[in-house]
Amino acid sequence: MSTTTESPIPTSITIETIWEARDRIAPYIHWTPVFTSETLNGLTGTRLHMKAENLQKTGAFKVRGALNAVAQLSVDERSAGVVTFSAGNHGQGLAFAAREFGVACTVFMTDTAVPSKVAAIQGYGASTRQFPTIQDAVAEMERTVEQTGAVFISPFANEAVIAGQATVALELLEQVEELEQVIVPIGGGGLISGTALTLRILQPDIRIVGVEPEGAPTMTRALQQGRPVTLESTNTIADGLTAPFTADLNLAIVRELVDDVVIVTDDEIVDALRLVLDRTKLLIEGSAAAGIAALLTGKAAVETGAVTAAILTGGNIDLGRLKGLL
Amino acid sequence: MSTTTESPIPTSITIETIWEARDRIAPYIHWTPVFTSETLNGLTGTRLHMKAENLQKTGAFKVRGALNAVAQLSVDERSAGVVTFSAGNHGQGLAFAAREFGVACTVFMTDTAVPSKVAAIQGYGASTRQFPTIQDAVAEMERTVEQTGAVFISPFANEAVIAGQATVALELLEQVEELEQVIVPIGGGGLISGTALTLRILQPDIRIVGVEPEGAPTMTRALQQGRPVTLESTNTIADGLTAPFTADLNLAIVRELVDDVVIVTDDEIVDALRLVLDRTKLLIEGSAAAGIAALLTGKAAVETGAVTAAILTGGNIDLGRLKGLL
Repeated sequence: MSTTTESPIPTSITIETIWEARDRIAPYIHWTPVFTSETLNGLTGTRLHMKAENLQKTGAFKVRGALNAVAQLSVDERSAGVVTFSAGNHGQGLAFAAREFGVACTVFMTDTAVPSKVAAIQGYGASTRQFPTIQDAVAEMERTVEQTGAVFISPFANEAVIAGQATVALELLEQVEELEQVIVPIGGGGLISGTALTLRILQPDIRIVGVEPEGAPTMTRALQQGRPVTLESTNTIADGLTAPFTADLNLAIVRELVDDVVIVTDDEIVDALRLVLDRTKLLIEGSAAAGIAALLTGKAAVETGAVTAAILTGGNIDLGRLKGLL
Repeated sequence: MSTTTESPIPTSITIETIWEARDRIAPYIHWTPVFTSETLNGLTGTRLHMKAENLQKTGAFKVRGALNAVAQLSVDERSAGVVTFSAGNHGQGLAFAAREFGVACTVFMTDTAVPSKVAAIQGYGASTRQFPTIQDAVAEMERTVEQTGAVFISPFANEAVIAGQATVALELLEQVEELEQVIVPIGGGGLISGTALTLRILQPDIRIVGVEPEGAPTMTRALQQGRPVTLESTNTIADGLTAPFTADLNLAIVRELVDDVVIVTDDEIVDALRLVLDRTKLLIEGSAAAGIAALLTGKAAVETGAVTAAILTGGNIDLGRLKGLL
C-alpha cells in the first residue's frame, strides 16, 4: 500500500490532471446527487451515501471519461474518428462525447449486448458492430484501427478516461463529510483507478473496496496471477462489469492503492437491485447493485456506522430484463 | 379566474402561512431535486422539469402537509392522537409526522390498499384499520373521532395540510427559471390547492393544469355538478388519486384558480410510468405518472416549448405490481 502515486504505478496522472478533467467535462455532465436511506443504513450497518451516477447523462458515469478523452484529441485524431469495445455504457458515453465534438464513432460489441444499450449508442449517432464474443469484437476493432487510423479510446486503460472517471471521487469528497470508505464496482478497472488515485492523494485514509461479480472476476484473477489475464467467458447479470481483461495500469493501481476486492453473486446483486429500487425509488443496473450487495452481505467488511459511499455506477437496464428480476 | 385568494375562496391561507409552513417542515423533509430529460422534452413538446417528490421522505409529497398539521397541534390535541383515511401516501406522511412529534396515529384504509403502503405506515409505528370500502373506512374513522376525541387530519380538506403541500410550488419557483406551466395530479385536491394558492399569489400568469385518472374523476365530477360528490367506486392504477370525494374548499380553489382539469386513462398512465423509469431511472407510482401522461397525450394542451413543471408526486409502488406493468 502506498499513499502516493509514485514508482510502482506507471501513470502520469496527477491531481492537476484530474482537476483539469473536472473543469473540461463540467459543461457536458450532471453533478449527480447523493442519496441516503435509513433502511439501507440499518441493513448495511453503515452511514451510506449513494452517488447517483445512474442519473448521469447517458445513464452511467462512463460519459465522464469518454468526454475527457475525446475533448483532448487533436484535429487529426478527431477527423480519424474514435472506436472502442464495450458492453454498452462506455459505448454510450463515447458516442455521446463523439457527438458533442463532431467526431465519428464506432462501438464494437457482442451479439448479447443489452439491446437498449445498442439502440442508445445508435441514437447518439454512432455505429455499432456486433460479434459472437468480446474477443472477436476486440480483434475486429484492432483491425479497424490498423486499416483506418481511427483512435481507440479504451474503456479503462486510458489515462484521459481514468482522469475523467476520477471526477466522481472529487464530487464525493465535496458531497460527503468525513467520508471513511468507498465501494466501487470493477469491470475493467477504470472507475476504481480514478477513484483510488484521487482519494490516495487527497484523503489517503479513506478505505477503498472494489467489487466484482462472480461471473466476471477480472481483477481478482489478475491480482492472483500478478498480471492481466483474459477470462474465457463471463456470465453475470451485471453486464457492465464484463470486461474480459484488465490492463497493467489498472492492475498496478488496484494492487498498490485499493484495500480489498470482493466478489458477489448474481443472486446477491438482484436482491440489492430490488432493495434499492424499492427503498430509494432509483433504478440501477446490476453493475451498480454489485456495490450495494457487497455491503448488504457483509463481504465489504466495514466498521459499523462508518461513513460510506457507494457509487451507483449506472441505470441502463432493459425494462424487460428488470421485469424478470422483480 | 381570480389572481388573489379573496372572496370566492373560503380560506385563511396566505403566502405568509405558506412561508411559515416551509420553515416549519424544513428540518424533516428533503428539498427534492428537479430532473430533465431530452427525450421527454421531445415527446411532450415542452421544456419539462420533473420535481422528484418520489424521492421525498416517505416516498411522497404528502409528508409535507402532514408535518405542517401535526406540528401545529396543541398539547391536548397531541395527547388525543391523530386519525385519517388514506389510500396510503397521506397515511405514511401522517404516521411519519406523528412519530416525529410523539403522537399516536391510526390510519383507516380499504382492504385493497397497496400492502407495502400499509406495511410502511405500521413501520412508522402507526396503527392501520382496513375496511371493504373507503366509505366504510371514513364512517368508522368518524365514529372513532366521536368516541376518543382523536384529531382528524384530512388528506386534503385541511388548511395546514394545504399550506404544507404548497411548499412544493415554493421550491419549484426557486428551482425552475421562467416557469410557464405546472401539471399537478389530483386526488382529493390538496396538492393542487396548495400549488394554485402559491402560484396565483407569487406568479399569477403560470398556467396550472390538474390531472385525474379516468377511474377516479373526483374533481371533474365536482366541477360539473358544482359541489363535492362522492364517487360510488374508483378503479385505477393510480391508487394515490382514489379519494372518493373532494371538499368545498378544494373545489372552490380549483374552480377559481386552476386553468384546466384533464382526464387520462390507465393505459396512458402505465405508458408514462414505463417511459419515466426507462429514461430518467426514477421509479414513480401511477399517480405521479398521470401528470406525465397528460403531457405525452397532449391532453394538457400546452404551448410548444413552454417551460413546464410536472410534480412526480410519489414513488410508492409495490415491486410486484411494477412487474405486472413492465
